Amino acid sequence: MTTKRDQSDADESGRFAYDGLDRALHEKARLGILASLVAHPDGLRFGELRALCALTDGNLSRHLDVLREARLVEMWKGFERRRPQTLVRLTPEGRRRFTAYLEELERVVREALPKATRTPNRARPLPPGWQPA
Amino acid sequence: MTTKRDQSDADESGRFAYDGLDRALHEKARLGILASLVAHPDGLRFGELRALCALTDGNLSRHLDVLREARLVEMWKGFERRRPQTLVRLTPEGRRRFTAYLEELERVVREALPKATRTPNRARPLPPGWQPA
Repeated sequence: MTTKRDQSDADESGRFAYDGLDRALHEKARLGILASLVAHPDGLRFGELRALCALTDGNLSRHLDVLREARLVEMWKGFERRRPQTLVRLTPEGRRRFTAYLEELERVVREALPKATRTPNRARPLPPGWQPA
Repeated sequence: MTTKRDQSDADESGRFAYDGLDRALHEKARLGILASLVAHPDGLRFGELRALCALTDGNLSRHLDVLREARLVEMWKGFERRRPQTLVRLTPEGRRRFTAYLEELERVVREALPKATRTPNRARPLPPGWQPA
């Protein structure tokens, strides 16, 4: 027994699954790292990235591992004024995938924000007998 | 010893920390659940939500627990055509916080997307001696 409402929902299956929001990128700290790097095409030193994203050494390392594993960033080691430095840069693939991710995010916002800010009509009262679960 | 670059970075500390992206909301499945609910002010039945978000029963339950704990959604139990149903609705606080979250997301996209899509100038070559880490 399929009601009209069931039918229209079936047509919309997965409409809010957001498959384009790759979990490697859609994590608050990694989103911050990628946004920092996209604004600095020549790369950022580890310490600069740590400050910009307000992360600890350990957290930044852990998130960079995930991003490097996913081929989104590359890391280089060298010396500046005799001190060892690590430089982090977006890979070309990282830039491409971050762009696609941001475009998906833009679609989410464009669709949901007008609905969220529309003067919220009060929800219809529930029929008698419904109880808080 | 603080170089000019260090100084300007210090001023930008935490600029990409994105504190507004609350982890209760900034999770792919929960973002989908909230976007579904904001589009349906009278609420959605559990099965409808599961289909729209392409989640399993277990995953949907787990994410609803997080959202309910955070007072973003409320759940009601009742009967329709003698069958038990669970209805999920956004709370007024949920609508307010989801709106604030979407506005933060909009700022992220507005800032990062133009940088991501700008024709990527090749990164400057690294000085001699730098090695892949």
